[in-house]
Amino acid sequence: MEPVTASTTATAKPTLRVAAFCGSLRKDSWHRGLIRAAEELCEESIPGLRIDHVDISGLPMANPDLETDGGEGFPPAVEALRDRVRAADCFLFASPEYNYSVTASLKNALDWASRGRRNCWADRAAAIVSAGGDFGGGRGSFHLRQIGVFLDLHFINKPELHIRAFADPPKFDDEGNLIDGETRERLKKVLLSLHAFALRLQQHKED
Amino acid sequence: MEPVTASTTATAKPTLRVAAFCGSLRKDSWHRGLIRAAEELCEESIPGLRIDHVDISGLPMANPDLETDGGEGFPPAVEALRDRVRAADCFLFASPEYNYSVTASLKNALDWASRGRRNCWADRAAAIVSAGGDFGGGRGSFHLRQIGVFLDLHFINKPELHIRAFADPPKFDDEGNLIDGETRERLKKVLLSLHAFALRLQQHKED
Amino acid sequence: MEPVTASTTATAKPTLRVAAFCGSLRKDSWHRGLIRAAEELCEESIPGLRIDHVDISGLPMANPDLETDGGEGFPPAVEALRDRVRAADCFLFASPEYNYSVTASLKNALDWASRGRRNCWADRAAAIVSAGGDFGGGRGSFHLRQIGVFLDLHFINKPELHIRAFADPPKFDDEGNLIDGETRERLKKVLLSLHAFALRLQQHKED
Amino acid sequence: MEPVTASTTATAKPTLRVAAFCGSLRKDSWHRGLIRAAEELCEESIPGLRIDHVDISGLPMANPDLETDGGEGFPPAVEALRDRVRAADCFLFASPEYNYSVTASLKNALDWASRGRRNCWADRAAAIVSAGGDFGGGRGSFHLRQIGVFLDLHFINKPELHIRAFADPPKFDDEGNLIDGETRERLKKVLLSLHAFALRLQQHKED
Repeated sequence: MEPVTASTTATAKPTLRVAAFCGSLRKDSWHRGLIRAAEELCEESIPGLRIDHVDISGLPMANPDLETDGGEGFPPAVEALRDRVRAADCFLFASPEYNYSVTASLKNALDWASRGRRNCWADRAAAIVSAGGDFGGGRGSFHLRQIGVFLDLHFINKPELHIRAFADPPKFDDEGNLIDGETRERLKKVLLSLHAFALRLQQHKED
Repeated sequence: MEPVTASTTATAKPTLRVAAFCGSLRKDSWHRGLIRAAEELCEESIPGLRIDHVDISGLPMANPDLETDGGEGFPPAVEALRDRVRAADCFLFASPEYNYSVTASLKNALDWASRGRRNCWADRAAAIVSAGGDFGGGRGSFHLRQIGVFLDLHFINKPELHIRAFADPPKFDDEGNLIDGETRERLKKVLLSLHAFALRLQQHKED
Repeated sequence: MEPVTASTTATAKPTLRVAAFCGSLRKDSWHRGLIRAAEELCEESIPGLRIDHVDISGLPMANPDLETDGGEGFPPAVEALRDRVRAADCFLFASPEYNYSVTASLKNALDWASRGRRNCWADRAAAIVSAGGDFGGGRGSFHLRQIGVFLDLHFINKPELHIRAFADPPKFDDEGNLIDGETRERLKKVLLSLHAFALRLQQHKED
Repeated sequence: MEPVTASTTATAKPTLRVAAFCGSLRKDSWHRGLIRAAEELCEESIPGLRIDHVDISGLPMANPDLETDGGEGFPPAVEALRDRVRAADCFLFASPEYNYSVTASLKNALDWASRGRRNCWADRAAAIVSAGGDFGGGRGSFHLRQIGVFLDLHFINKPELHIRAFADPPKFDDEGNLIDGETRERLKKVLLSLHAFALRLQQHKED
């Protein structure tokens, strides 16, 4: 294998834009808090990543009858979503588990941005984090991974972060802010892994 | 325990109410057509079953912040959904596969009716039918089954009906009506299996 | 249809035979310990259930080339397995999670007993218990449930028992014996739920 | 993004070794035939890939009690497997679906090579191909993908190849040889996609 030259890795590495999605609509959601913590971590200590939190609360429910122009025109809120997805270098899903799967709200955004001739998600790295009860929201993550096969997402495998939110010590405060230092460190490791994987995938993309 | 009297089982078998849900919001959806065909089949030849098609298009997106009364009060459209779900004896899901999973629209209804102290779905028989491309929508059915573990649904195992809608002969017309006789027969077998399974489960329920 | 007589339900309820399978081949496996605990619980306090622990360690690896008589003849160890499966009223799977799925050993037994014209598992109730790390072996249970769709197993939904074996207090001793009283109570509830579900399904089976 | 220099891609690109696994033990298995076809395709027209077909038929059933040296010593057939897995640049799984999941034989190999301090599969690209009935063996592929999360495999997303083996025209002859030209072309596209993905992942691996 060819050596990676210093110029590639040290001087020209651009900041990657991470489009981040919160699967919960709750104002004080833990998952919203995880995205805020990710924003802070990137600003503080991961210069190669910048979080772009994409609000998905205002989307209409996915329905092909709302599409125009032979399936290439979308309601304004959907067009805005699609632009943000297309502009991202990789993705972070803060994905709560509702009834052992992903939320309707997240699935709705995933579906809208996959429609038309151009699946906006295609061929980018992604990571999933969750918080919940016994399994920390982990059951839903495997559904998201299966959805990602069709969307053509490349999920990092490790580390996984499924936070058992009711176990001591407290992980979140009443506004959903992540207050546990160890969990914050684990979230940072997820972001670093996402960063590294996104960079690996960018190479040779145009071969 | 109540004794099961001969009169209950042999003479007075009541008609079971099947709450049916279409996972697509499209007006001419194949899945809406499958529910119409199920209604006709029950009227024509399955006296023990009656389809109650529950429209889920007007629900707000699931969001615990919309709940009142300590999580026991819901928006009017959600209360109406919950009443219909509670009143049903069993369930039929006409569930399209969007991106290898269930639609946001269906997941939304599943989640709303599971909230609060009383999961409205609990302990009833259910069946899934779908139409689609290569797998006939079948990948999504396994996600719905996993969701059903928490909802406490008892899915029939056989027969499975995942219709390869693009294979000859044509299965649906432009309005989504099921026009293929053989597929109609397969749908009837699903309904008969659901009926038999719902009756088996009703016995001893109060033991 | 046969009327359900009062004598059947009230006086003569037979003991149900639970074929139990340990997915681990380890001598001191926690899962073997779970089956021993289930045996004890049934003897002590569940008169309607009797555990039949089926040893699956001596089976050849599933291979249709080993079948004779046009697919209806099997190696002796496989025939013995199939007899025990057929004779069971319901099933208990003590199923460890290896690499997020079921073990090869358990899958092998599941496959062998499904072969030929007669799927030996068909149309019986089943329950899954597991022990493991973070998720208590729970990820594998959803694979087993998907396998069960084709095998035509009817799994109980609740309660689920996925034991976090490394959490305090200790759950198992060095020989794999279940030593935690609370977990033992949870296992008992699984067995009672399996019993109740198997009885519900037996009614009307011959309709 | 940095330009990929001609020297990297044109002159020094080494041949990647693809360890290939057949999940069936049948002598005339379609899946063995798919690996033979992949070998031929690589020899004929994909100079960057070479298939190393790893026979997994002689492995003992996975059992930690067979491990020695504190979990770092394995039976000879397992050591041989582990060496071949470690030496590979990427993986091809010809994975039949038995009862809606992977075969015991394949799961056994996956588990053995994951044991000990060193998971031999880690951080390599992989592809799945299958043949079968209605879904072409596709249901099992999602289980393999979930297993791969823990094994740290990076599966290609597209193209998927799940061959409906009973549909016209015939796909395999009686010895399991792939005889359909169009399917052969689809297999070639899977191999090219695996090749491209493995190359992308090799870059920056040591960053």
